Amino acid sequence: MENTHIIKGNVIFTKTPQKFDLYENGYIIVENGKVKLITSALPESYKSFPITDYGDKLIIPGFVDLHLHAPQFRNLGLGLDKELIPWLEGYTFPEEAKFKDAAYASKIYKMVVKELWKQGTTRAVVFSSIHKDTTKLLFDLFIQAGLGAYIGKVNMDRNSPDYLIEESAQSVKDTEEIIKEYINKSDLVKPIITPRFVPSCTSALMKELGALAEKYDLPVQSHLSENMAEIEWIKSLHPECTSYTNVYETYGLLRQGKTIMAHCIHNTDTEIELLKKYRVFSAHCPTSNSNLSSGIMPLRRFLSEGLPVGLGSDISAGHKLSIPCVMNITVQMSKMKWLESGRQLAPLSTSEVFYLGTKGGGEFFGKVGSFEEDYEFDALVIDDSDLGDTTLSLEERIQRYIYIGDDRNIVDRYVRGKLITEPVF
Amino acid sequence: MENTHIIKGNVIFTKTPQKFDLYENGYIIVENGKVKLITSALPESYKSFPITDYGDKLIIPGFVDLHLHAPQFRNLGLGLDKELIPWLEGYTFPEEAKFKDAAYASKIYKMVVKELWKQGTTRAVVFSSIHKDTTKLLFDLFIQAGLGAYIGKVNMDRNSPDYLIEESAQSVKDTEEIIKEYINKSDLVKPIITPRFVPSCTSALMKELGALAEKYDLPVQSHLSENMAEIEWIKSLHPECTSYTNVYETYGLLRQGKTIMAHCIHNTDTEIELLKKYRVFSAHCPTSNSNLSSGIMPLRRFLSEGLPVGLGSDISAGHKLSIPCVMNITVQMSKMKWLESGRQLAPLSTSEVFYLGTKGGGEFFGKVGSFEEDYEFDALVIDDSDLGDTTLSLEERIQRYIYIGDDRNIVDRYVRGKLITEPVF
Repeated sequence: MENTHIIKGNVIFTKTPQKFDLYENGYIIVENGKVKLITSALPESYKSFPITDYGDKLIIPGFVDLHLHAPQFRNLGLGLDKELIPWLEGYTFPEEAKFKDAAYASKIYKMVVKELWKQGTTRAVVFSSIHKDTTKLLFDLFIQAGLGAYIGKVNMDRNSPDYLIEESAQSVKDTEEIIKEYINKSDLVKPIITPRFVPSCTSALMKELGALAEKYDLPVQSHLSENMAEIEWIKSLHPECTSYTNVYETYGLLRQGKTIMAHCIHNTDTEIELLKKYRVFSAHCPTSNSNLSSGIMPLRRFLSEGLPVGLGSDISAGHKLSIPCVMNITVQMSKMKWLESGRQLAPLSTSEVFYLGTKGGGEFFGKVGSFEEDYEFDALVIDDSDLGDTTLSLEERIQRYIYIGDDRNIVDRYVRGKLITEPVF
Repeated sequence: MENTHIIKGNVIFTKTPQKFDLYENGYIIVENGKVKLITSALPESYKSFPITDYGDKLIIPGFVDLHLHAPQFRNLGLGLDKELIPWLEGYTFPEEAKFKDAAYASKIYKMVVKELWKQGTTRAVVFSSIHKDTTKLLFDLFIQAGLGAYIGKVNMDRNSPDYLIEESAQSVKDTEEIIKEYINKSDLVKPIITPRFVPSCTSALMKELGALAEKYDLPVQSHLSENMAEIEWIKSLHPECTSYTNVYETYGLLRQGKTIMAHCIHNTDTEIELLKKYRVFSAHCPTSNSNLSSGIMPLRRFLSEGLPVGLGSDISAGHKLSIPCVMNITVQMSKMKWLESGRQLAPLSTSEVFYLGTKGGGEFFGKVGSFEEDYEFDALVIDDSDLGDTTLSLEERIQRYIYIGDDRNIVDRYVRGKLITEPVF
């Protein structure tokens, strides 16, 4: 038990969405980066190990972001008066094209990784751009920072502007080069197959990407059913398929328990059955979905039917990288959905959104996002003393932090048991 | 022209909701606290006056908050899993009752005023509690801080808990005492008649309050049509009136151009006509309206019909005091309303929400919220250099600040031409 240390404080996490698990002045025994035991009273046998006592502070799992576009970082807060397709063409594609340039990419990607650190996002599933070399740079920065990530070089070989399109064979070749280089380079930062979305990828390319995913047993991420116009477009592009979801299935891109689809707002019942069959993770991105007037995902239905769901900041269609901000708006939008559904789809509780932003998304990474035994110790230490009365219950304190705290309240961050300081790039 | 000084920087404001007025490296000539002239080139005759040069920073009107409950400040981020009535009973009333105590009130009200300062809210329309003496304390703190406000001692003499209810005659007497003491004490901080909402006030009390408003020519604030259950309750309480709005009209509480009603979500066409007739200001509080599952105000309709509207943080049903946060969620909810209305009620643009949070609410105070000639010079100086590229257009920079900036970006605050430093209490 050489690599054992003990963390003490007010421990808050969610084994299940239904309620918070709370340990006032609790002890987390961390062995080899994993939670060995969580307890209110330290056993005698552990009393000789080093302890970090955080006093009255809160200790919570690190945040997990299941969907974000790193090269859109500089567009945060811009262009948010558009719907999906004009927003892509007017703002997003021109910005992503800049990531051909290594110096520009280096500058911005360093900011992204630092900002994720700052906001307490310890694990992220990331789209880069189509550019191979700068995607490698993003891998290296995450590895250097010590944060966990799946990173996908974006593939797009049709319906894309001249300045941001690939030749199909080269797209596959570049993707495989990255996979080979990074599949075993880091335990924390791994490749993920990333067709941008159906309209951007020919059937041939999607088929090749499906084959790569199979060959290397890799996860897959893309976008699904975000916008009504997008869905109509896909119907016309793929008359051979029965639905948007079925396009991904057809080309081998729904991998059992290993696929993330962002948005999932307008799926049919049949599509929801398909998502269930493959245990597809939905990345719920309500900030983006409201900013781009996409609509509100029927999140309650997904949860009731047992589909896996996590939260996504979806920057820069979402304007906040902060997962607590995404938790807030998830609750708010779930209340609007409740009204819209004639009070059928119940609003989410605070413990439910907390679960989604920690263990819900964390499940995509394995045993991540909770402090149950054998979970990787990814944690944030929160000083909420400037947010008001700290004699409130822990449940009230965590709710208050989610609603009104910000990055200034996060005083320490751990990934796999290791204290992660601000990246020095 | 003794009291003349000149402010230089990138000036941004909205004469009309439709577009931003922009002066890159512009000059604002301030005389006796008011804008004399705004210009891109400083006239020869003004070159001898003192100038404050803010370089590449942004200069915008101070934010105006038309609706907030000061004694609910310590409840920020708490209890947001309830609808209106249970939230009032479970969280809000118990907290407000504490403001009987001068020491507690002093502690919390100092925090409120400091936080308004910090967030760049230079004018606010405020509910205190039923307590006369601590309401006076709140007046004194605003006066000391140099921020502008209307402050209303809350009246409630029915349907309220034993620990937070007034005897009707005493309620009127206390209200008049405050009016007499504060009506001429400060140019910036004034009393406003504040029946909590119809269910909390007997008809007799409302009538007396209407008479006080008339006698002293005072403005009035209350709540209107926030929640369906509330509306049904009022129907049963006031069979003599034709609508919720008509109750206020009946008791003399709709004063021409001098009344603010918070929320205005579920009004009938007839009620909207009444609001128009009396030129009632609506305080749009979308954060609160989503947190309490109240619904989405048909804001576009109010604007199209020329009704005056401003924004309200509505703390603590709203969890953010920041008006830019309220602007964000106003746009997001307007997009949800657009979808809900079958794309009939168009979403708000950035210039429209900026207008609502500055000049829209500012009109309630007179010539406030803009930099047109003769407007009071209430301003914020924004350093957005950490938000990204500052070679963008001013329109993009202000949009970005609204979406992703926070209090850390505000470097100076002015009210009526005077630089307002952090309150020292």
